[in-house]
Amino acid sequence: MPLVGIPEVEPGDDLANLILLALDRNSVTAASGDIIVVKQKVVSKAEGRLVKLSKVTPSKRASTLAAQEGKDPRLVQLVLSEAKRIVRKGHGVIITETAHGFVCANSGIDRSNVRRGYAALLPLDADASAKRLRKRFEEATGQKLAVVITDTFGRPWRRGQTDVAIGCSGLDPLLSFRGKRDRYGYSLKVTEPAVADEVAGAAELVMGKLSGVPAAVVRGARYARGEKGAKDLVIEADKDLFR
Amino acid sequence: MPLVGIPEVEPGDDLANLILLALDRNSVTAASGDIIVVKQKVVSKAEGRLVKLSKVTPSKRASTLAAQEGKDPRLVQLVLSEAKRIVRKGHGVIITETAHGFVCANSGIDRSNVRRGYAALLPLDADASAKRLRKRFEEATGQKLAVVITDTFGRPWRRGQTDVAIGCSGLDPLLSFRGKRDRYGYSLKVTEPAVADEVAGAAELVMGKLSGVPAAVVRGARYARGEKGAKDLVIEADKDLFR
Repeated sequence: MPLVGIPEVEPGDDLANLILLALDRNSVTAASGDIIVVKQKVVSKAEGRLVKLSKVTPSKRASTLAAQEGKDPRLVQLVLSEAKRIVRKGHGVIITETAHGFVCANSGIDRSNVRRGYAALLPLDADASAKRLRKRFEEATGQKLAVVITDTFGRPWRRGQTDVAIGCSGLDPLLSFRGKRDRYGYSLKVTEPAVADEVAGAAELVMGKLSGVPAAVVRGARYARGEKGAKDLVIEADKDLFR
Repeated sequence: MPLVGIPEVEPGDDLANLILLALDRNSVTAASGDIIVVKQKVVSKAEGRLVKLSKVTPSKRASTLAAQEGKDPRLVQLVLSEAKRIVRKGHGVIITETAHGFVCANSGIDRSNVRRGYAALLPLDADASAKRLRKRFEEATGQKLAVVITDTFGRPWRRGQTDVAIGCSGLDPLLSFRGKRDRYGYSLKVTEPAVADEVAGAAELVMGKLSGVPAAVVRGARYARGEKGAKDLVIEADKDLFR
């Protein structure tokens, strides 16, 4: 269920309240187990994670890389500042590992749906943002809820992007079937659906990129309540075949 | 909407009919635009893409690789037979590029939810399978429908798996925003949501791995009707930063 009619979010806005008002406006009565999905962009805006590009001074490294990839050197400076390492570059794309451990284009920084001349950075800790939102939603509705904060990531080998979870609270991002057996007795050794990512993608199907719908409610998804965050989706370096 | 009560599928079964019967049994009246999501495993079974492991003779290469990764040499033989190349191996995992161009563990072959002693291979052409199913569904219901055939893939850098599209018909797997502008006038240069993959993940949230629900209906997702298949999700080799 898309939550339409949320006004433009500005730094310092009470995002939880804007979303609660939108639930009312969209006649959605939160039910226990509902997952409220919120786009990263509005979380970043509310948290003031916007940078005016004219105030950024690119380093020599950023300028060189920007020239190579045909990008704005000030944007590249921000990309490098938010990155632990560059994973790949080429075809005008810089794929980095962010401080959080996410691997994505441009350290998750982008200029779409923000005031011109500005760029939005990822929240510093989107799991903490999700937890704050969840507590507010639960207080206001009296229901046990979950929150997933989503961003749009590309992926190797497959064209296009899907929305994935960069923060979550109230649901375990992975649902483990490890050690469970199928109807033929076969042990499902490695099966762990990344439900937080699937919820993110499901919500994207009603939110879109242009329609100004920064939140949605996902109901009826099977997940396990838990305390883990989207941080737990990051593969440990020693188990990562793609370092 | 999960479609429960579909019986065990055997080679040669009329899968379209089994799913149509399940629509009735689940009181789901197909509406124009509905996407019927079907798991690869039942498509493979109906199409007879099952191999008895005791009939597979592993090559020397398969036996060596199997010993390295602690796997059944007959399974590894099948993995190699279905692969164009090995993309990565280690930690007991063999990631290959299949003949279709999909990059996934074990060439998409697995032994879960199949009779013991057998392995299920991916359909030879899941886009064609999806098209056949879609035509049957459209004939039977009189509605314009789409079909997505899904499998469970891991992904680099992120733990767990999500369901993705390996075949589709009636919907374009990508929704293009290229050249469109956001409300601030910013051009969305690279935005192409992989809706077929998001639909696959959304459906997984109600299907699960153990519950014997091999099909679901996704309603209300925004997508473009089109003739492209999941083949179009494969990145062209010369644009692939992860070769």
